[in-house]
Amino acid sequence: MELQPILWVIPIAGLAAIAFAVYLAMGVLRADTGTAAMQEIAGTIYEGAVAFIKRQYRTIAILALGGTVVIGLIITLVEGPEVADTRYFGFDLGWRTGLAFLVGAACSMASGIIGMLISVKANLRTAAAAQHSLVRAVQVAMRGGAVSGFLVVALSLLGVFGIFTAFGGFTNPEEAPFLIVGFGFGASFVALFAQLGGGIYTKAADVGADLVGKVEAGIPEDDPRNAAVVADLVGDNVGDCAGRGADLFESTAAENIGAMILGVAVWRIAVDLNWPNPEAWIFFPLVVRAFGLLATIVAMFFVRGSEDENPMNILNRGYWATTIMSVGALAFVTWQMMQTVGVTGANGIPAWVWFFGAGVVGLATSVAFVYITQYYTAGTHRPVREIAEASRTGPATNIISGTAVGYETTAVTAITISIALFASYTLGSQAGLINDAGHNVGGIFGTAVATMGMLMTTAFILAMDTFGPITDNAGGIAEFSKADAKAREITDRLDAVGNTTKALTKGYAIASAALAAFLLFSAYIDKVNLILTNQIEAGTREAGTLLESIDLANVNVFIAAMIGAMLVYFFSSLAIRAVGTAAQAIIVEVRRQFREMPGIMDYTQRPDYARVVDITTRAALREMILPGTVAVATPIIVGLLLGHEAVAGMLMVGTIAGVLLATVLNNGGGAWDNAKKYIESGQLKDADGNVLGKGSDAHAAAVVGDTVGDPFKDTAGPSLHVLVKLLATITLVLAPLFIR
Amino acid sequence: MELQPILWVIPIAGLAAIAFAVYLAMGVLRADTGTAAMQEIAGTIYEGAVAFIKRQYRTIAILALGGTVVIGLIITLVEGPEVADTRYFGFDLGWRTGLAFLVGAACSMASGIIGMLISVKANLRTAAAAQHSLVRAVQVAMRGGAVSGFLVVALSLLGVFGIFTAFGGFTNPEEAPFLIVGFGFGASFVALFAQLGGGIYTKAADVGADLVGKVEAGIPEDDPRNAAVVADLVGDNVGDCAGRGADLFESTAAENIGAMILGVAVWRIAVDLNWPNPEAWIFFPLVVRAFGLLATIVAMFFVRGSEDENPMNILNRGYWATTIMSVGALAFVTWQMMQTVGVTGANGIPAWVWFFGAGVVGLATSVAFVYITQYYTAGTHRPVREIAEASRTGPATNIISGTAVGYETTAVTAITISIALFASYTLGSQAGLINDAGHNVGGIFGTAVATMGMLMTTAFILAMDTFGPITDNAGGIAEFSKADAKAREITDRLDAVGNTTKALTKGYAIASAALAAFLLFSAYIDKVNLILTNQIEAGTREAGTLLESIDLANVNVFIAAMIGAMLVYFFSSLAIRAVGTAAQAIIVEVRRQFREMPGIMDYTQRPDYARVVDITTRAALREMILPGTVAVATPIIVGLLLGHEAVAGMLMVGTIAGVLLATVLNNGGGAWDNAKKYIESGQLKDADGNVLGKGSDAHAAAVVGDTVGDPFKDTAGPSLHVLVKLLATITLVLAPLFIR
Repeated sequence: MELQPILWVIPIAGLAAIAFAVYLAMGVLRADTGTAAMQEIAGTIYEGAVAFIKRQYRTIAILALGGTVVIGLIITLVEGPEVADTRYFGFDLGWRTGLAFLVGAACSMASGIIGMLISVKANLRTAAAAQHSLVRAVQVAMRGGAVSGFLVVALSLLGVFGIFTAFGGFTNPEEAPFLIVGFGFGASFVALFAQLGGGIYTKAADVGADLVGKVEAGIPEDDPRNAAVVADLVGDNVGDCAGRGADLFESTAAENIGAMILGVAVWRIAVDLNWPNPEAWIFFPLVVRAFGLLATIVAMFFVRGSEDENPMNILNRGYWATTIMSVGALAFVTWQMMQTVGVTGANGIPAWVWFFGAGVVGLATSVAFVYITQYYTAGTHRPVREIAEASRTGPATNIISGTAVGYETTAVTAITISIALFASYTLGSQAGLINDAGHNVGGIFGTAVATMGMLMTTAFILAMDTFGPITDNAGGIAEFSKADAKAREITDRLDAVGNTTKALTKGYAIASAALAAFLLFSAYIDKVNLILTNQIEAGTREAGTLLESIDLANVNVFIAAMIGAMLVYFFSSLAIRAVGTAAQAIIVEVRRQFREMPGIMDYTQRPDYARVVDITTRAALREMILPGTVAVATPIIVGLLLGHEAVAGMLMVGTIAGVLLATVLNNGGGAWDNAKKYIESGQLKDADGNVLGKGSDAHAAAVVGDTVGDPFKDTAGPSLHVLVKLLATITLVLAPLFIR
Repeated sequence: MELQPILWVIPIAGLAAIAFAVYLAMGVLRADTGTAAMQEIAGTIYEGAVAFIKRQYRTIAILALGGTVVIGLIITLVEGPEVADTRYFGFDLGWRTGLAFLVGAACSMASGIIGMLISVKANLRTAAAAQHSLVRAVQVAMRGGAVSGFLVVALSLLGVFGIFTAFGGFTNPEEAPFLIVGFGFGASFVALFAQLGGGIYTKAADVGADLVGKVEAGIPEDDPRNAAVVADLVGDNVGDCAGRGADLFESTAAENIGAMILGVAVWRIAVDLNWPNPEAWIFFPLVVRAFGLLATIVAMFFVRGSEDENPMNILNRGYWATTIMSVGALAFVTWQMMQTVGVTGANGIPAWVWFFGAGVVGLATSVAFVYITQYYTAGTHRPVREIAEASRTGPATNIISGTAVGYETTAVTAITISIALFASYTLGSQAGLINDAGHNVGGIFGTAVATMGMLMTTAFILAMDTFGPITDNAGGIAEFSKADAKAREITDRLDAVGNTTKALTKGYAIASAALAAFLLFSAYIDKVNLILTNQIEAGTREAGTLLESIDLANVNVFIAAMIGAMLVYFFSSLAIRAVGTAAQAIIVEVRRQFREMPGIMDYTQRPDYARVVDITTRAALREMILPGTVAVATPIIVGLLLGHEAVAGMLMVGTIAGVLLATVLNNGGGAWDNAKKYIESGQLKDADGNVLGKGSDAHAAAVVGDTVGDPFKDTAGPSLHVLVKLLATITLVLAPLFIR
């Protein structure tokens, strides 16, 4: 097989991104580390974060090793020669799937840990830079975040490419995508526990610290007398950095593999019709992502601006640079790799143009979600103001209004995703890719290209996301170390921007999950049909029993669909409750310290921060097990009881329900948060025009909303992203188990 | 056609139920009307309720007349001879469908109005009876409620039977069910606006009265100085009585018609195989419901007990009597009507036994939901206590905990419905009903029988539901008229029971909607295929293009499914926001009265209750239009854009999402309400064992939760029940419009 030279871009971009991440990390580490007081608190945060991450990843590693063995065994036992979907079966396939799972899990863990480690270094440097310059502080925080962004995307790219190559991707490209699905499952598996554990930790610490500090003791946020305040600052890192990193690692990995599986269907056509370079269709997703990574590296140099500018503009400049360069790169890649199509699409327009259009739809979707999320969660628009107004009549109306806003956001989300799916499907189906059974496979491949287009900007989005906890921490460090007013003013501004970027990433993550859902279903159906075809050929199955449709009018499919939608609520319930339980443990401990160490309140005694960190760590790790287990076990049980068609129904309807509930939780939580900030900034007035600011009843009501939104937007919502993709990877890997 | 004598039971039971309702109503009206003070406030409530109902039903009547014309026109224009699904088409079919719609709408309005009128008479009599005897008060309230229950079910039974007969049900029984689908749509249409308007009214008044009275002015609930208190008492009647009556009217009607359509499939088999009385399969749903009505009449005599008994036990005795007699009646009806089957089912067991089993599954599901709802919303179990405990740390943790409980309740709900569906489907598919295409139609008919079994107890359930607002009002009247302590103690006990019975009805309503969903989809598919078959026979459509499956892997179906799930959230958002907007209008007015009429606070001036009632009425009617229009328009738009298969996907996934979100809202709201009551009853203690009762911070936190839950459980949740069934009836009626 003669390979196209363009494939070299995959390892080159991956390694370049890693090198660039190292370069950025060194720059961050060399930056000024501020005053001694700053260094002290930063050191405490660092220790707490490292302690948690060590313990958490040890637990996850044990779970992942267990998972590896179980999956290897299941595949070995179930995929005997008569059900094999490749020339590998039994133990041959079992160890490969197990290994892929393990590598996926390891890469996910590595990217989470390294990104988190650099961000707990960048927080201090950002606080130090904020003493002098806004732009400098933005750059330090953004570069710290970019280390995470580049590492996550590069490891995902190199990981998929590596395991694909190792399992014969260059010799049997049509077979390898099915062998590496374990990689995606491993990534989801780790992401689930990383996000759950981190999400529970961060919000239990936040809620616990607020309730016992602000509400009970009447001391301000981030006050050093609150024993839970360090745990709260640690939480920003372990929840937002490590959690979202794992989330997007698995998005990119799973969607990449799913797109390659769909590429196999096009590969068959290309081989049948003797088009040159048929394997290009399978490699396409990797190449697109590689170019996206290169575009993002260049775009990092656009993150610059002036001191008196809104910091969000500085970041937006980089984001737009990434997007525009990605459009160019997309045009080049689709032209390069798809111009070989032997037939032209509708209206005589070549196939690559149609797919370029589908990719642009993906990029446009990503831009749309950035602005949609801003509309719903920024204080400059109607929804947040509505919640702030409702706070004037107390916490109840604040909650009612926030709930209404959260529910409302599903409308534009669902409609945007629908348009993106419909447009990319329609564009793809014009490309003229008809297989020998007469099916047009271009439509589904169009949705895959759109997803890949959307994923081109992942590294930049993730950098903006990690910018959030870094600046949040920098603010905490400035407050805690009593830094001068200028530094605190700058970190406050950055913190507000960070809230927006964190919300954006969630919008992006959930939109990409929704767009990818359809390609992942299709990959599942392809895989099931491969197995069924082998069984029919082997004579162990009746002819004509392929999986042609996922029929909702079939009672088993309908039941599974209902269970899938229910799982989304039940899982969220467990995640939310876990935060409450863990927060309770923190409250009890801080109360004890206030009681037994009376010197805390007049600063003569130092609270025992480490003990609270330790208690939070243990509580979070204990509480992540139940929701994690429910998420993994439910699809397996449903698949075993109701069969392979039903489990697909569960996957699809579970995805729809999960995307919508995550939207409700993320945007509702973000809007509550910013309604509080809106009031704090003095923009809410009563009927007589008096400002209702900090300390007013309206503010107290808004604090209630903010606290309610915390576990919604930072624990349950992001964990649902992972759940949705876990459903897809788990069914893809365990498909043979569900065949009946 | 020789008719079975058993069919006479349909008109007999219907008329008997109406006669019994008249008898009960006369008994209630003859009862003692208490003190002059009681009569005065009851008179004010009566006037307010009548004023609202008049205005609301005038608006609804106009909308319904418009709907009649539009539907008649659409059907006339769309169902030309080439798409006709019966020998009627064009204007012939158009006027029939329009007429059925109008009759359905009229019956629904009549049952809502009459039931409401009697309940605003029963409230005073219940308060009066409570001065002397608990049992007597229970009986008055329950009989008042039963008037509503019997009228709703009897009108639905006679309405469906009448229009079925009028459209040739006795001469062409296989055709008539398709002609009367308009009846179900008319009922849903009225129910939607009745429930929305009533739900917005009741909760806007409740929230408005609480916020401006309890929170701002610091006066107790139901205090006569609060100008909104009469509106609040009026609201209980118009929301809970009229709304739920319309909800269950349309449930029974739509599910009855859906079951008859499925009966046609069995009728075909019966005709082919020359079984006697083939039409029995079509009449079966009507006969089962008639027997359920008779059983409920008898069961009313079991509503008795002793003075020192828990009033819930008195009601439960009647409910169990209804259920047990229904089992017996079910056995008789299935044996009588289905013993004629020419083939026996699996294991040589006759078909009627299998279907009897399916019906028992339905009755068991109804019992299960009564207890599930009690578990989640009564203060005696873990969930409510958990919320009460969480109130100790403030409103935020109360809300978080209540949300977690609400989400959690979806699990047992979805699993119970899944088991019921699976069991009734499996039982039915053993009955040996195989059609000439080799399809087993018994399974789906089994789910229809289960739904009918569940609906046998509707009249009793609805009586218990209406018991709720009657006793709630009786409590308000006792409080308002300063009745003696004994009367107030008794009405308080009844009010608590009423809260439980209201929650039960919602659980029952949503479970029956979920169980019926599957039969309504199947009816839709049957109807679409009838049209397609006619088109194929007429040569206007390619052969082999029947609707064989609702394929989720089809991109249009997937998009429609997502829109369906989104609609549920968006609609709820609009409903919740409507309450807030209407409540705001009330607050402004009550504040104005406090300001401009200073004598109110020292009882020297009487607040202008009527003005608040009027403002609430206008606000509620204005606010119901937007959510109502969205609910009706969305399925039509999706159907027109994406076609007949996609709209089925929307219907199914929208139903799943609606059932689950309604469960969350109903049970979460109920649990919040009872957590507040749990604290008020002095059962919550702090760490040192001190009671945290009324006036404590924990109580204040629980009040916030209760207020948040109000629009969830009494506006959005119940409106979702109606939305779910509206989706089914609208697609059934407008199916020809969506065919592509």
